Amino acid sequence: MPDDAAHMRAALQLAARGLGNTWPNPAVGCVLVKDGQVVGRGWTQPGGRPHAETQALGRAGEAARGATAYVTLEPCSHHGRTPPCCDALIQAGVSRVVVALRDPDARVDGRGFARLRAAGITVEEGLLGPEAAALNAGFIRRITQGLPLVTLKLAATLDGRIATQAGESRWITGPESRRAVHALRARHDAVLVGSGTVLADDPDLTCRIAGMDPVPMLRVIADARLRTPPTARLVREAGRHPTWLLTGAGHRPSALAPYIGAGVEVVTIRRAPKTAEGGGGLLPRAMLAALAARGVTRVLAEGGAGLAAGLLRAGLVDRLVWFHAPGVMGAEGWPSAGPLGVAALAAMPRFRRVATEAVGEDVMSEFVKE
Amino acid sequence: MPDDAAHMRAALQLAARGLGNTWPNPAVGCVLVKDGQVVGRGWTQPGGRPHAETQALGRAGEAARGATAYVTLEPCSHHGRTPPCCDALIQAGVSRVVVALRDPDARVDGRGFARLRAAGITVEEGLLGPEAAALNAGFIRRITQGLPLVTLKLAATLDGRIATQAGESRWITGPESRRAVHALRARHDAVLVGSGTVLADDPDLTCRIAGMDPVPMLRVIADARLRTPPTARLVREAGRHPTWLLTGAGHRPSALAPYIGAGVEVVTIRRAPKTAEGGGGLLPRAMLAALAARGVTRVLAEGGAGLAAGLLRAGLVDRLVWFHAPGVMGAEGWPSAGPLGVAALAAMPRFRRVATEAVGEDVMSEFVKE
Repeated sequence: MPDDAAHMRAALQLAARGLGNTWPNPAVGCVLVKDGQVVGRGWTQPGGRPHAETQALGRAGEAARGATAYVTLEPCSHHGRTPPCCDALIQAGVSRVVVALRDPDARVDGRGFARLRAAGITVEEGLLGPEAAALNAGFIRRITQGLPLVTLKLAATLDGRIATQAGESRWITGPESRRAVHALRARHDAVLVGSGTVLADDPDLTCRIAGMDPVPMLRVIADARLRTPPTARLVREAGRHPTWLLTGAGHRPSALAPYIGAGVEVVTIRRAPKTAEGGGGLLPRAMLAALAARGVTRVLAEGGAGLAAGLLRAGLVDRLVWFHAPGVMGAEGWPSAGPLGVAALAAMPRFRRVATEAVGEDVMSEFVKE
Repeated sequence: MPDDAAHMRAALQLAARGLGNTWPNPAVGCVLVKDGQVVGRGWTQPGGRPHAETQALGRAGEAARGATAYVTLEPCSHHGRTPPCCDALIQAGVSRVVVALRDPDARVDGRGFARLRAAGITVEEGLLGPEAAALNAGFIRRITQGLPLVTLKLAATLDGRIATQAGESRWITGPESRRAVHALRARHDAVLVGSGTVLADDPDLTCRIAGMDPVPMLRVIADARLRTPPTARLVREAGRHPTWLLTGAGHRPSALAPYIGAGVEVVTIRRAPKTAEGGGGLLPRAMLAALAARGVTRVLAEGGAGLAAGLLRAGLVDRLVWFHAPGVMGAEGWPSAGPLGVAALAAMPRFRRVATEAVGEDVMSEFVKE
């Protein structure tokens, strides 16, 4: 039916509201339609529950009986922190369930469909599947590859500098770009920065949207050598916003104590082997795997140059968001990405541009991996 | 009259056709209107003559009698390489002349208006004056300040690199951007590059537009130390395209002979005083003054990093056109601008963005001096 796609599109829009707030769960949307009328709408709530189906069924009440449910991801069939959504749909008397995407989670993966069909419900699968897969790319990546989706955000001058020679970086981009960064953070589960950025900027990496209370944001520091001062804002404010410190093994407990005491969770990450050129840093893939293992599905990496280079070298940047301020810093400025070892032009990491827009005086472009 | 502005706008559009091809003369447009009908149109022809008025009058013939002439710049009153346009307008019997901008050239500067008025012609001045001044900014700059208008064009990766560590730069940007650069060249009188770019790229800096013969383009090399190989394409092809070599005084005649023999014009430029940090390079302002003294009104500087930095440091970049390719090179790549000595962020050269557009896979943004 032509209306099916419209209802699924509405469900996808509802699902998108949860992005950044539902981890470790996917962001799901659900629309209940009876006799052509929408009788219930729901989306995964902050923290990952209640689920979208429960929300929509609750709104519909008795009207759910005989309705069609449009759900962006296969309803769960297992008891997690909530009873299975399949059971809720069956109990509510829904007669038809249209699903965009099969849930790759081994605990579901078709079992939801089977359970619904066994109850006599008509099940259709795959409507707007690619759109649903794109929306939940982070969740799918975590389930199938044990890694989160990574967005790398950089804010630089036209010549790609992120700070003056002396390290001054506030503010290269304008207030509109900084607001856009807060909106980006809101759609990611975690913000990841290197210790150089902590030392240079002492950022708080919170998510402030005008007219809203700050959204609790998981802040993650990659810091092999424990360079982060215990007086850094990220550490001092760890009680109010979850904060993880990724570092190598072998630090003395007394060196870790100030972080742990402040409420920071210390996560041990495998280091790169030491080589003549250096090495000994945290392995980017190992950092991301540790985040995914803890449930993180969408990471916003905000630099600096070392973290950006590590992720780019390892081919781990899925999306790139670049803010260019209308200035030229010159060659003494700090580079936006560290050494990448690009020997030939053909080996340079390239991306496909999907959007460009003016943001105040700056230009923001978004890219995806080629 | 409301139609006056429309006719002047048409004249400005005609004038723009000449940009890049009329130096040392301004690019002028002229529309002749009689009884509401356009009876003649003209614009400054390649090389700067015939002038726009002569062209339009020639097209109009007898119909010019009693017509109104819309001219973007004050008609000349002096005998140059052509007889004065004022006399031609008077002889043709034009009854009214509407002019956008007074010609700042000391040989004109109101004398054209006086001459027309003395012949009984109604003269109106200033319609769309700012637009005409913007169009002929290069000519006005040359006449009033003895400098050309300078557009700096740079093509770099997102992180501002113009070549790999090994100097490979072909091609960072895509074919669409390279075509856009040829179109940019066509609207400038001269292309200016540093000797590093000649060594790295051996460019020909011609202007090729699809479906058209190559436009003869003045190519200028800034080369204090005579690093340009006499075998470079710019030197070898100097017989077909005018080529100037800007260098310091004091070179042995035998060192200059290969360039002069190939048809290159060598222009001596004052050097910056030698200092502990280096110095001894050509003074950017002196280079531009030498070009303006030879009639050049619009210069497209195409890099490399040293030339770009010299122009930026001296505050001599009027317009900036930046192509960003969708790749990240990393910190070993060549910077797009050399050291600028920016001590504090507030001192960074900033520009005002006037346009951004997708050009193939790249993004092109245009800026003007703040």
